Amino acid sequence: IYLELEKPSLGNNNADQQRACDAVRKKLKYRSTQMGLKIIKSLPKILREYDYRITATVGLRRDIAEIMNIEGGNTKDKNYMIVVDMGTTTIVAHLVDANSMRTIDAKACFNSQGIYGREVTGRMIAAERKGTAELQQLLIDDINRLIGGLAKDNKVNLKYITAIVCAGNTAMGHFLLGLPTQNIRRSPYIPTSVAPPPLRAAEVGIEINPRGLLYSLPGISGWVGSDITAGILATGINEKEEISMLVDIGTNGEIVVGNKEWLVSCSASAGPALEGANVECGMRAEKGAIERVYVENGKIKYKTIGDLPPRGICGSGIIDLVSVLLNEKLIDRSGNFIAPKDSNSDLIQYFDGIKGFIIADSQESQTRKPVFITETDIESVITAKAAIFAAMNILIGRLELDFLDINHFYIAGAFGNYIN
Amino acid sequence: IYLELEKPSLGNNNADQQRACDAVRKKLKYRSTQMGLKIIKSLPKILREYDYRITATVGLRRDIAEIMNIEGGNTKDKNYMIVVDMGTTTIVAHLVDANSMRTIDAKACFNSQGIYGREVTGRMIAAERKGTAELQQLLIDDINRLIGGLAKDNKVNLKYITAIVCAGNTAMGHFLLGLPTQNIRRSPYIPTSVAPPPLRAAEVGIEINPRGLLYSLPGISGWVGSDITAGILATGINEKEEISMLVDIGTNGEIVVGNKEWLVSCSASAGPALEGANVECGMRAEKGAIERVYVENGKIKYKTIGDLPPRGICGSGIIDLVSVLLNEKLIDRSGNFIAPKDSNSDLIQYFDGIKGFIIADSQESQTRKPVFITETDIESVITAKAAIFAAMNILIGRLELDFLDINHFYIAGAFGNYIN
Repeated sequence: IYLELEKPSLGNNNADQQRACDAVRKKLKYRSTQMGLKIIKSLPKILREYDYRITATVGLRRDIAEIMNIEGGNTKDKNYMIVVDMGTTTIVAHLVDANSMRTIDAKACFNSQGIYGREVTGRMIAAERKGTAELQQLLIDDINRLIGGLAKDNKVNLKYITAIVCAGNTAMGHFLLGLPTQNIRRSPYIPTSVAPPPLRAAEVGIEINPRGLLYSLPGISGWVGSDITAGILATGINEKEEISMLVDIGTNGEIVVGNKEWLVSCSASAGPALEGANVECGMRAEKGAIERVYVENGKIKYKTIGDLPPRGICGSGIIDLVSVLLNEKLIDRSGNFIAPKDSNSDLIQYFDGIKGFIIADSQESQTRKPVFITETDIESVITAKAAIFAAMNILIGRLELDFLDINHFYIAGAFGNYIN
Repeated sequence: IYLELEKPSLGNNNADQQRACDAVRKKLKYRSTQMGLKIIKSLPKILREYDYRITATVGLRRDIAEIMNIEGGNTKDKNYMIVVDMGTTTIVAHLVDANSMRTIDAKACFNSQGIYGREVTGRMIAAERKGTAELQQLLIDDINRLIGGLAKDNKVNLKYITAIVCAGNTAMGHFLLGLPTQNIRRSPYIPTSVAPPPLRAAEVGIEINPRGLLYSLPGISGWVGSDITAGILATGINEKEEISMLVDIGTNGEIVVGNKEWLVSCSASAGPALEGANVECGMRAEKGAIERVYVENGKIKYKTIGDLPPRGICGSGIIDLVSVLLNEKLIDRSGNFIAPKDSNSDLIQYFDGIKGFIIADSQESQTRKPVFITETDIESVITAKAAIFAAMNILIGRLELDFLDINHFYIAGAFGNYIN
């Protein structure tokens, strides 16, 4: 917020801090404001150099309005935040204009913690042996790389990024802050914290404004994390009369069922196949990824992101492809290839001794290597789908409901946007 | 506070942080609690090692209960705080038992900032030239030395000292935090802050519990500091129907007049004479200081603190002595010695060319040097007294009151306790 303070006089000889805080309080109607020592120290110079015209960056820390930054003059337009979805497999960061609350740009990367295991359980075991510090560092480095890229591409100075909001499963939330994870994976599954306090981002090494705040969204339990809280808020299923179901398909899939009076959730380990990982030609949903597979005049066709020559196949493409293969009777319900009797027969070949289907051959592909899906890949997809469907079934059953009782069905994330 | 937490089970699988915070909130009825990352990290181990029996140290930071420390088992008895009066000339620290709120011990020292000037103005000029860092360090070192001494003498581990409360004139409050002082001494006399937020004591280098809080009492303006706020609260003049006057006699003397409906204050520069500084044989009120001077059978007698041979003369002794000299007609109203006609004549001698009166000769004194007061010393005392009396007069006059309207008269501090 931009403020023009009353200038000091013998009639108004308030201290610099009180002058600035009073102005913020009046403008924003907060009951209580707070500013740190560094900002207080900087006030005398800034106020006098800029003739008592300042821009204050204010964040909420519990009930207190925390003045995170004060700059001379009007720099109101330059205020950004970062929003991160810390997935087990994929990390996505959005650069958001804090004035309009619109996303300006987004970037994603695979989670570098993958070297310690594809599932969080493996990483928690590693953390118990070696401490969480290394896992934390890998995650922070990923996040900093995404922020750095977003800042550079959009010509945003890091000091104008004043907040970062992170959501993710509870284990990822622990890794972010370096919290011990050992009790999450053992009955009765006790996390260290499901609602960590707002911290300075700098305290964990995240590179934004040095006084910028890191908000960890509150989660629910050891196995239902803050990404689900975010999903509930985004879909508004907690405000609807009718019963909704929210499914977050990730490496850990979570399902929430309920309405404005009650919400019940459960979690299932799906594996990373649907994020394009653990699949031979899988990739994230980036340019050149096959995102759609369909049949036209009896031919299997595909569409890539950006209509570029294919480099691989992403989650929505994988689901389409498996569906097409099943409909075209190229695979059976167990995911095994059936010898085809038509032109598609050339497309089934062996890859390292495992049967696979070529969706784009080496001529078409950007990499000069064919893009294909193997029986092993299909098994991963089936397992993931089965895990999530089983969880839905059990949850619905426990609630003595039927799928027909679900009035709204939501699939979370970018995946939900693109799935056919 | 000592807490026995409910143990986790599948029926109560709250996270460690929520479990601990809920227990604190329930016990203390605070609306909101907060704990820092380090404590959250330490929770899983402490809770399980000590079977969910813990002692939490809780401080108030604005409206939030800040959990500053969590220890295993019951360590409730070990909770201390430090209360400091940061005088321009003298720094006094009390060690207080935070359970009973009783002072256990106190220590004092001269303010090492004296090398930059006896008055805060000189020090503010030095701070403008060289930055506040050096003045801050001198003060912090003094405070740490006092805390260290108190902790050692009373066998208190520094980690059990969980808070420090500091009061002092506004310039001293600025030096404590390293705040810029340059606008305090120039019209319209704007301090950087008169109500700094609670900080971690470690942030300014004060050595107590690493998460311990530093509370700066709120002051009033650039020249009426938080020591006066403390004095008002301690005397309760803000709750009385009748009009009171509070005088804080220090290097800067402050006067407050008012009742429960209004309070007006002013400030006067008295100099350090009444604290035993800037007086040839002056000393702080420690063992061996002449604290009383009186006449018995026509002879001038004295009493020292601890009834030891005299080493010097402290504030209350100086005032007594000047009063006795005047009553005995050894000095005139201007403070000049009058040639006496009796046995006292031997006691008036020249010291470095200035007339002085010997109160204890080299035989009696602990240092084998006489304890005396010179005309220059007496002038300092007269000036100090005149400054404070002038301030009282002006304040009373401005309020269109008379001294007879004052129902209660308070003199602050140890000085107020001992003055005759």
